[in-house]
Amino acid sequence: MSWAATVLTVLPEMFPGPLGISLCGKALAEERWSLETVDIRKFATTRYGSVDDTPAGGGPGMVMRPDILGAAIDTVARDDRPLILMSPRGQRLTQARARELSQGPGAVLVCGRFEGVDERLIEARGLQEISIGDYVLSGGEIAAITLIDAVVRLLPGVLGAEASLEEESFEQDLLEYPQYTRPQTWEGREIPAVLASGHHKRIAEWRRAQSIEITKSRRPDLWDAHQRRAAGAATKQ
Amino acid sequence: MSWAATVLTVLPEMFPGPLGISLCGKALAEERWSLETVDIRKFATTRYGSVDDTPAGGGPGMVMRPDILGAAIDTVARDDRPLILMSPRGQRLTQARARELSQGPGAVLVCGRFEGVDERLIEARGLQEISIGDYVLSGGEIAAITLIDAVVRLLPGVLGAEASLEEESFEQDLLEYPQYTRPQTWEGREIPAVLASGHHKRIAEWRRAQSIEITKSRRPDLWDAHQRRAAGAATKQ
Repeated sequence: MSWAATVLTVLPEMFPGPLGISLCGKALAEERWSLETVDIRKFATTRYGSVDDTPAGGGPGMVMRPDILGAAIDTVARDDRPLILMSPRGQRLTQARARELSQGPGAVLVCGRFEGVDERLIEARGLQEISIGDYVLSGGEIAAITLIDAVVRLLPGVLGAEASLEEESFEQDLLEYPQYTRPQTWEGREIPAVLASGHHKRIAEWRRAQSIEITKSRRPDLWDAHQRRAAGAATKQ
Repeated sequence: MSWAATVLTVLPEMFPGPLGISLCGKALAEERWSLETVDIRKFATTRYGSVDDTPAGGGPGMVMRPDILGAAIDTVARDDRPLILMSPRGQRLTQARARELSQGPGAVLVCGRFEGVDERLIEARGLQEISIGDYVLSGGEIAAITLIDAVVRLLPGVLGAEASLEEESFEQDLLEYPQYTRPQTWEGREIPAVLASGHHKRIAEWRRAQSIEITKSRRPDLWDAHQRRAAGAATKQ
């Protein structure tokens, strides 16, 4: 059973899009995951195919109707997959959440557009709201593409031996250390000498110190989380 | 002069992708913004077209070479546009940052792949690192698409009269209040009575109270930021 994504959207033509190319596209062709789209417009009840209406109480934009989106959701075979609404009001996507999703059977992703989705639908169907960040997009489709990409690269066999240290670093709430490659000298700049030492322990220590330094200076919030995690791990011993 | 995006990538076929559809696609066709891709592989110096090499000091994955990526960057006419590297180590994209970018001439976006980009290149060319969130993607392309979408919808004329309150809410560090639309009763659930009152002040108060409640319970970090901002505004008076 491969990881199964079902995306409910008014823009099915956005898929697979970037997910059909490169790493995710190769994994899709190899059936390491599957992608199905459900066109919400097919559930419209008016002859114009509209799926939204004006907000109750007034205000700009349009809101997705609960009856139409509900009917679309009800046709999807959930199969124990989480039902997720891409929404800037949601819990933030993290590397840990992406990993957790990658270890499950898949995800059903609802892409809102316009001003949002009728709140009753969110409550009645128990949608989990997930946000990819504190900014507003034109709709949930690009957020869904982002979430799927973050998950698919974690599926078994997709990155292979390269299943890199990068995400481990993020799961410890540290940012990546600086990377270098050939040429040895470029525009008068050298690769740090320690990296050519061949001394694995010293290299690992240097990299960790760099990760800590970068995290402290760029993301004090992550550094706090890292220290809380370290304190929690120490308490358990 | 429309907002000009230049994207440096090893996967130019990912563009415009979702950016060629719907809101962004329409704005692209109307020349409210422009999109140019630069294929980094064209600057490769080996016959195999490789743009990356193994990390100095060892480790998994591959690192983008500074000489090749530097040559690609140096062909781009910057025209006062910020030079940005999409990177999970970067400053987080926020709605305020998206708005700031939308008020400038455009952006030059470098998409890293593999383990990362040689640090000397980041320093030598002064790349600003921006992250769309605390998760790892297969490459910077989907992050660039996300950033561009967040910016383009803020450009003049793109959303028009719908230039909604949603982002204003985010810029005040509050999450959106719940939205409702027809039908009035759905699966036994009613739209909250206040929204049908026609009493604009009461509706606005209810919505604001809901925004505050949702922000407090879901995102204490944003709520703290909101209070700091409110305290700062009070101090200035």
